[in-house]
Amino acid sequence: MAKPVETTLRLLFPQWQGGNNPPYTFGSELLEWLAPPADGPVEKIEIVPFDGTPLKNENGIVGRTSLQSQIEEVHRAIDKHSPNRIIVLGGDCGVSLAPFAYLNKHYDGELAVLWLDTHPDIMTPDIFQNAHAMVMGSLLGEGDPDFLKNVSHPVKPHNVMFAGMRKTGAEWAQIRDFEASFFERLQLRSAGPEELADTSAPVIEWLKSTGARKVAIHFDLDVLDPHYFRSLLFANPEIPMPHGTPHGRMRIDQVTRVLNDVADEADIVGLTIAEHMPWDSLNLKNMLQDLPLIGRGFS
Amino acid sequence: MAKPVETTLRLLFPQWQGGNNPPYTFGSELLEWLAPPADGPVEKIEIVPFDGTPLKNENGIVGRTSLQSQIEEVHRAIDKHSPNRIIVLGGDCGVSLAPFAYLNKHYDGELAVLWLDTHPDIMTPDIFQNAHAMVMGSLLGEGDPDFLKNVSHPVKPHNVMFAGMRKTGAEWAQIRDFEASFFERLQLRSAGPEELADTSAPVIEWLKSTGARKVAIHFDLDVLDPHYFRSLLFANPEIPMPHGTPHGRMRIDQVTRVLNDVADEADIVGLTIAEHMPWDSLNLKNMLQDLPLIGRGFS
Repeated sequence: MAKPVETTLRLLFPQWQGGNNPPYTFGSELLEWLAPPADGPVEKIEIVPFDGTPLKNENGIVGRTSLQSQIEEVHRAIDKHSPNRIIVLGGDCGVSLAPFAYLNKHYDGELAVLWLDTHPDIMTPDIFQNAHAMVMGSLLGEGDPDFLKNVSHPVKPHNVMFAGMRKTGAEWAQIRDFEASFFERLQLRSAGPEELADTSAPVIEWLKSTGARKVAIHFDLDVLDPHYFRSLLFANPEIPMPHGTPHGRMRIDQVTRVLNDVADEADIVGLTIAEHMPWDSLNLKNMLQDLPLIGRGFS
Repeated sequence: MAKPVETTLRLLFPQWQGGNNPPYTFGSELLEWLAPPADGPVEKIEIVPFDGTPLKNENGIVGRTSLQSQIEEVHRAIDKHSPNRIIVLGGDCGVSLAPFAYLNKHYDGELAVLWLDTHPDIMTPDIFQNAHAMVMGSLLGEGDPDFLKNVSHPVKPHNVMFAGMRKTGAEWAQIRDFEASFFERLQLRSAGPEELADTSAPVIEWLKSTGARKVAIHFDLDVLDPHYFRSLLFANPEIPMPHGTPHGRMRIDQVTRVLNDVADEADIVGLTIAEHMPWDSLNLKNMLQDLPLIGRGFS
């Protein structure tokens, strides 16, 4: 009997509309440059580049039309290859929606999802209008119908674990209450940064309890502590961190350890790296364009 | 009469030995990736990559042999093109030595040099053994004979201006005293970050006083304030800044303004960008190599 074909698709997905923040596109390009070379097919998703016109709030979701057409583009790119594993280099957190929905369908609804993120991304348009904060909600089968159309097999709530998440500050009572009742209703698991500082046990115990053999991991870089990794939205050197915004508390070696411990326990079939916002590189690139000789040239 | 040929050579020079710090090579590669495309010939200098063996102090200069052979390589690369302008993407500060020496010879000893740097780089081996701190000294015709061999036309002391330089802290009395007597003996000019915060006047007045029409600019990124630009040696997130080390105080827009004001006054024929140390990108690149699926692969 022939061995089943193993295909790891790499998706380059420089989406910025989900966070309404054009530099996510640059962050995606730099992430691609930094990543180890692909050992399978690579697909780059064409996005609508920022042209200076602010995105519109379209019926509760900023940039809805662009986001929808990009999701359709992802489905086409995936269907070309029918991969059994997908690596996604974002872009904002919205980049995980279509790939993880595909993976859960591919694995007959048995996919486990580990969501490494300071925020659970379960918002709905009545609370918050940027779609990158809604992705995990959509994958659970909740929220805006346009996005739910892309999720044929919602992920089972018990198969989801949030890791590194911070409790929302008291300044954002509406969000805090919404998240608390959402977690309560679906009985969602989470482990904070302190619980994972020295051990991956809470994640491994959850994984064993699911019985799942296939795991997709969403790694929002904002789960990292911005004092040690500064290429994050809220580590803009020119803008002090907004009061009350929870920031990440994990270290690179802790996240690396958690992911490798998961890999020892189950088959990682999806991996997203998202929300790379490399301020220094962006500022230096822009500066070089403004300098004489190298930027404007004398020719 | 034919117009003289205008050639701006771009040198990619990932030297790390001058600072005895291997990641300068990575910083150089990222700088190349960030820079606007070249509109002339490009030469990449082959350097001896770091192989895990610490550099030796060779008669007062760490990595002397490697540095010498790299300087010879630069001379060959420049002589191939006989450019009238050179852009250097470093690497450590040592990358300016051969290109600026060439330019001063090319312009009959009349080159002016603007040295934007927190440190004046006039050390000698009896004070400090890393060659990247000696470059401007060599260009002035002072210091180690091996390096002086590469400077056929020393730059006139009056034609040199240090900008953004910090006075060395009291903790480093030996360096402070050496620098003070060197500046006094050669009557060197400097303007601190505060003097340039709102105006380029000190630099422009110096430039006018020289009568020079051709200027080379060395821009050590460490002249920037590490609170706003963190891709600098002393902004390593894992290591607190050493006590007493002077750090930069200039902002990107201030440096950009100074350089453009200089360009309005004279012909910029040399531009070096040096000492790029992008911690986040380096840490993220290394992390990705350690992650399952994307790093080790499952193939």
